Amino acid sequence: MRVCKPITIRYAETDMMGIVYHANYFLYFEDARAHYLEQLGFPYDQLESCGYQSPVVNVTCNYGAPLHYGDRPLIVTYVSDISATRVTYSYEVYRDEETREKGKPNCSGSSVHCLVDTASFRPVSMKKAVPDLYAKYCEAVE
Amino acid sequence: MRVCKPITIRYAETDMMGIVYHANYFLYFEDARAHYLEQLGFPYDQLESCGYQSPVVNVTCNYGAPLHYGDRPLIVTYVSDISATRVTYSYEVYRDEETREKGKPNCSGSSVHCLVDTASFRPVSMKKAVPDLYAKYCEAVE
Amino acid sequence: MRVCKPITIRYAETDMMGIVYHANYFLYFEDARAHYLEQLGFPYDQLESCGYQSPVVNVTCNYGAPLHYGDRPLIVTYVSDISATRVTYSYEVYRDEETREKGKPNCSGSSVHCLVDTASFRPVSMKKAVPDLYAKYCEAVE
Amino acid sequence: MRVCKPITIRYAETDMMGIVYHANYFLYFEDARAHYLEQLGFPYDQLESCGYQSPVVNVTCNYGAPLHYGDRPLIVTYVSDISATRVTYSYEVYRDEETREKGKPNCSGSSVHCLVDTASFRPVSMKKAVPDLYAKYCEAVE
Repeated sequence: MRVCKPITIRYAETDMMGIVYHANYFLYFEDARAHYLEQLGFPYDQLESCGYQSPVVNVTCNYGAPLHYGDRPLIVTYVSDISATRVTYSYEVYRDEETREKGKPNCSGSSVHCLVDTASFRPVSMKKAVPDLYAKYCEAVE
Repeated sequence: MRVCKPITIRYAETDMMGIVYHANYFLYFEDARAHYLEQLGFPYDQLESCGYQSPVVNVTCNYGAPLHYGDRPLIVTYVSDISATRVTYSYEVYRDEETREKGKPNCSGSSVHCLVDTASFRPVSMKKAVPDLYAKYCEAVE
Repeated sequence: MRVCKPITIRYAETDMMGIVYHANYFLYFEDARAHYLEQLGFPYDQLESCGYQSPVVNVTCNYGAPLHYGDRPLIVTYVSDISATRVTYSYEVYRDEETREKGKPNCSGSSVHCLVDTASFRPVSMKKAVPDLYAKYCEAVE
Repeated sequence: MRVCKPITIRYAETDMMGIVYHANYFLYFEDARAHYLEQLGFPYDQLESCGYQSPVVNVTCNYGAPLHYGDRPLIVTYVSDISATRVTYSYEVYRDEETREKGKPNCSGSSVHCLVDTASFRPVSMKKAVPDLYAKYCEAVE
């Protein structure tokens, strides 16, 4: 499953180089991930209301041609790996629709997430704790 | 009591105008306020460990000459008003030491804070809940 | 003219109180303002491509009941004052559609903006420099 | 050369999990890198005043035990790779002095930077454009 999320760039997210500050791509990835989970039928706040949280354990990002204010980027998101305890998201950032059709992302990144019990912040098995979500991930992974 | 806090500007905090993005001054005010509470002898995390939080109920900021990356601004902070339930902080931002000596702030702002019980998020009286802090504020206000 | 902009809250925008951090409302105001300018027929990047920028000279915000992750707030925006050199935006933040119908904003704020020449960062008259925008503001102000 | 930078955590940088939001580690890395460049004798703004900028081309971060408000983390920074066109920084985040003495970072990350001409945003050779900085990097790399 691949999900596409349009992003609006805030002036606040640019820096004095006139481009989007590198760390802010992780905010866009959060938007993309939230959108993915909605499309999957398991919104993130549902996870938290079950008594779990999903901290980030690893991120990467490769930056190519930068994003500017006024661009209307698209983020294509998919789950690239799933295990009992960890899920890996992959992201491709395209400056616009045309760039996406050409299949040449401006930027690509990834994030790995575990699951913890909210009360103890101890890691738990996604497979056991939220089998519905785990099953959805297994079906969606590519 | 007036407390002076030097600030280091992050590249992340600038925008494509080449200046510090206006909302980020409130991050500097947070730094200044935290420093003030330390100097007062009642650090903010002590307040939270007593079971209280101190949400912001109002802010203002007047922006003059902007701040740039590489500037070493100073924030002069004082408590300008105190009541049983609310404290008002005032901030003066100076681009550098020289500007401070001239007494002409680049920017000035304020923030009003109440006190809530962490468990219920209900407002409580600062005077009753944390009399030590309240007494310190009363002594420091100007 | 009143314009309504739905906001999506990022996890990144919450703090350890479990609510949206106060300074982040100014990011939402930026979103609302950009949306307003689009509806007005004069998007902000058009202003910059004319050789002008529009720095913030003053902001205020009054916070009531806080916003939480998962809320779908709406921001109602209007221009409340206009002069040759300054425009004042006013914002009302509603937690959701129901709150908006009741007319009781969770939060309200304002921002005042001037116009500067990008090259010199010197203030210019909006009325003279961008008469189209000025005329639109005069018609829209309430 | 290894440089150690103490960090102060802002309330703004925490999220509703009660920990530092993952993307904000890259702000701390920026602080650490700026400090490194100062210790190296070539502050970042000097680079910009020579007519160059140094965009980020890649970042990674591995998160272990999270950081909380009130922690006084330390970031140990070193240059782990240098070529004519790219420099790689490595970062180790320690919750406190004691953790650093034990040599067990809470988190580790990296960032790769190129050099571009400010006017054209075209990549240039660091070795040719800023030979002083390049020589310092070559001496400091480990």
